[in-house]
Amino acid sequence: MPKPNVRDKLLAAAFELIYTKGYNACGVLDITNAAGVPKGSFYNYFKSKEAMALAVLELYRSYLGADLLKDKSKAPIKRLRSLFESYAALHAKWGYERGCMMGNFGAELSSQSGAIRKALKKYFDEFCNTIATVVQEAQDKDELSPNGDANQIARFLVNSWEGAIIRAKIVRTSAPFNDFFAMTFDSALKI
Amino acid sequence: MPKPNVRDKLLAAAFELIYTKGYNACGVLDITNAAGVPKGSFYNYFKSKEAMALAVLELYRSYLGADLLKDKSKAPIKRLRSLFESYAALHAKWGYERGCMMGNFGAELSSQSGAIRKALKKYFDEFCNTIATVVQEAQDKDELSPNGDANQIARFLVNSWEGAIIRAKIVRTSAPFNDFFAMTFDSALKI
Repeated sequence: MPKPNVRDKLLAAAFELIYTKGYNACGVLDITNAAGVPKGSFYNYFKSKEAMALAVLELYRSYLGADLLKDKSKAPIKRLRSLFESYAALHAKWGYERGCMMGNFGAELSSQSGAIRKALKKYFDEFCNTIATVVQEAQDKDELSPNGDANQIARFLVNSWEGAIIRAKIVRTSAPFNDFFAMTFDSALKI
Repeated sequence: MPKPNVRDKLLAAAFELIYTKGYNACGVLDITNAAGVPKGSFYNYFKSKEAMALAVLELYRSYLGADLLKDKSKAPIKRLRSLFESYAALHAKWGYERGCMMGNFGAELSSQSGAIRKALKKYFDEFCNTIATVVQEAQDKDELSPNGDANQIARFLVNSWEGAIIRAKIVRTSAPFNDFFAMTFDSALKI
């Protein structure tokens, strides 16, 4: 019987390696070595490297936690800004080296794995819907012009943020995030 | 003596393979096979796979050709829009599968190769400067408010576009590009 803690070890090792190096840059052996388990045991827990990547991605999705958006004591746009600022702080902590796993997978694996592309589509859609709800709330409270399509604003924010993250991986400074805030929250999406 | 046409064959094969599969998903053998040359010959032309990736990236950079921006018979913002529309048309032609090589490399290789990261920084900076010149021209001609920082607008446009490209790789439709145009050229950056 597979022991649950071995799967947890494998998942944690895979998460760290894939997030820092990319999917194709690390093999199953790197992951089992990092987890301190025999290579053969990998397939007791994951039917393939792709299946493991899907589990890693699901874990990443769970970390995006948009709990900051639920704090109704703050105005909607302020909550949205806080969420993106919390991500920016994480990237700064990581020296801007990691990027967003969803964006990394999108760039590296969209054409390589239909299952990963489908999961990415679902997670991005869910995340954009969460953002859109708060954009809509901001419109209802006259924080934002009611003319814009809340879903489109949300998608644009998320996509622009993903682009800023990649640029931050390249320049290794917060400049792309500063540009993002200046051109969205500080101007079109005035707070 | 290395024959120049072998290098050209290798470069063309590497460009196609790396652009469609990603850097780490294809090896030197895949490239020499696709080019129809012996594996050993690779190192007569490139000192490493990384050196080859830099040559591929330089070639990609030369294809970004912003010639559309030079057509002074068109208003500046119209020229800018035409450039992004021409990119969108290419992505549609490719079924949205390829993405932008600079964005792909940024996501996959920024933490893996200092030389590639440095080249990406340079190429993105150059590209943003080219865009900024036209944004500045639009401001000078009162097409755009003079209040915005032309360089920041340019960087934001380019980063947001990169994010839209990755999302398009995932959803395989033009929707992320439509969102981009709606939220930039059609609103904040009114034409």
